[in-house]
Amino acid sequence: MLGEFEIIARYFAPLAEGTPGALGLGDDAAVLSPPAGEDLVFTTDTIVSGVHFLSDDPPDQVARKLLRVNLSDLAAMGARPLGYLLSFTLPATVDEAWIEGFAQGLASDQDTYAVGLLGGDTTSTPGPTTLSLTAVGRVPAGRALRRGGAKLGDIVFVSGTIGDSALGLEILQGRRTVEMESDRERLVDRYRLPRPRMALGRELLERGLASAAIDVSDGLAADLGHICASSGVGAEIDAVDVPLSAAVQRLVESDAGCLVTALTGGDDYELMFTVPERLAGEVGKLAVELDLPLTRIGVLAGAGGVIVRGADGEAMELGPGGWTHF
Amino acid sequence: MLGEFEIIARYFAPLAEGTPGALGLGDDAAVLSPPAGEDLVFTTDTIVSGVHFLSDDPPDQVARKLLRVNLSDLAAMGARPLGYLLSFTLPATVDEAWIEGFAQGLASDQDTYAVGLLGGDTTSTPGPTTLSLTAVGRVPAGRALRRGGAKLGDIVFVSGTIGDSALGLEILQGRRTVEMESDRERLVDRYRLPRPRMALGRELLERGLASAAIDVSDGLAADLGHICASSGVGAEIDAVDVPLSAAVQRLVESDAGCLVTALTGGDDYELMFTVPERLAGEVGKLAVELDLPLTRIGVLAGAGGVIVRGADGEAMELGPGGWTHF
Repeated sequence: MLGEFEIIARYFAPLAEGTPGALGLGDDAAVLSPPAGEDLVFTTDTIVSGVHFLSDDPPDQVARKLLRVNLSDLAAMGARPLGYLLSFTLPATVDEAWIEGFAQGLASDQDTYAVGLLGGDTTSTPGPTTLSLTAVGRVPAGRALRRGGAKLGDIVFVSGTIGDSALGLEILQGRRTVEMESDRERLVDRYRLPRPRMALGRELLERGLASAAIDVSDGLAADLGHICASSGVGAEIDAVDVPLSAAVQRLVESDAGCLVTALTGGDDYELMFTVPERLAGEVGKLAVELDLPLTRIGVLAGAGGVIVRGADGEAMELGPGGWTHF
Repeated sequence: MLGEFEIIARYFAPLAEGTPGALGLGDDAAVLSPPAGEDLVFTTDTIVSGVHFLSDDPPDQVARKLLRVNLSDLAAMGARPLGYLLSFTLPATVDEAWIEGFAQGLASDQDTYAVGLLGGDTTSTPGPTTLSLTAVGRVPAGRALRRGGAKLGDIVFVSGTIGDSALGLEILQGRRTVEMESDRERLVDRYRLPRPRMALGRELLERGLASAAIDVSDGLAADLGHICASSGVGAEIDAVDVPLSAAVQRLVESDAGCLVTALTGGDDYELMFTVPERLAGEVGKLAVELDLPLTRIGVLAGAGGVIVRGADGEAMELGPGGWTHF
């Protein structure tokens, strides 16, 4: 087993090279300032082996997922990423190849998202590998996208497709099978590697389109509930309008229960946002510019709560799926 | 067992009330700006049950220690604290009373240090309770205290007393006994409850006294080694000059090995700093103003490495104690 300082020197210090404010990881803390007229934005997420990822998941994908779920929170605020701090808590049984793969995954995504390591902590545990990441981004001062600005009559949009990740996890767990290998690959890939919608969040902010935004992590229905609770409104969406990939459509055709999983499963890391009706036409243009589907799925209506209408026009019974960690 | 959202609503949301930028924990991320002319400073630390604290430690003290070790890193940079993010990773066996005690400890120290909860994450684990905290502070732009500014001839000072915490841990582990109950209480208290030297760090920065600073967490000898490595100098200190509490002095008198534990054991969370010789006289005035012992323990000399001279004038053999987590 490598020592703490060797792990830092060999694998983490290179990730901090060139990160403004990281001070080469050689100090007690990182130092950072936002550009004039900007606020800094912070978010933190922890993942645990056996809970949020599987112990035989490729370590580079674990690293990239951890970074990306945090970047997704920044995207939901319309923020540009600056850097991140990492707490790396390892059992003695983790071998160096795992650490090396993990660091390689971070290096790869640092290039993709133009972020760098700012600082961190490396400790040991008698339990499972536990990884906490705090991401730091920046937004124009006072203009961060929030959950609480939605108004009755605003239109609800969501990016990309919903449900791939939740069904990919069920496949990995052996709880569901698909006929086509390409469907398996797509769904598992979406579970392992979120695509945080950084450009979408930024453009929604800069164009002043979104009255509220959130990233879909707890599940589409639950996260829409968070917007409704923060904004003091209700929402009505049509399940048939929720965008599904071809792979998920095929699963839903063979088992209607898959639709409930898609609507409540979470881990999508798409952005859901509300747009005043008079601006809704602008969303189509943005979708074309970003080459990213942005789909109208419903409207804010009623006093509270989320109603999801099925194909028969009746409210669906979604159950508690996808809501909490406990 | 409480659900994730209930834990947040009942115990953590109250800790974020009134924290600027926390947005009531109701958004994807916190938003914060430093005052004009200031930089933000970030640090993160993780503690694991059974490794960094004991499972029967009082939960309020665990919380306060976690917050304080992070504040100590801010103090070492000369920063004023602003707030913190918390990742709370819990086994199903943790009961609500533990969570409540933990939150009470945070509330108490939020008042003491004028900080608030900015955001966080609550997840479950099959392993031990694991707690990651990221603290955010502020310093005048470009003036954060660093480890790398020390010069040959600078005088080495340390605040408070050294070794109480490491010997307190040995007492808690049943590896050491003391005759006086009041000694036991002092040493155990110092292990459980660090006193981050916020005012000292701030004054060292504002008065321009320190050429380098660090908080003593890995052990006095190791942390002086960090300053030496960052600054490209060596250091010579005299063990007899290292400030010891009366309780530690009594232990050293009965077992000279306790002196090695004190010098290498870590978890002191005092500040060690270097001062150009022409300014060393100012340190005594600062000690009086802060009502905090600031003791001269040695000088920067030589090309690299730390030499600790014993009472006989010979270099002590300190061994690898206190250096790493692995």
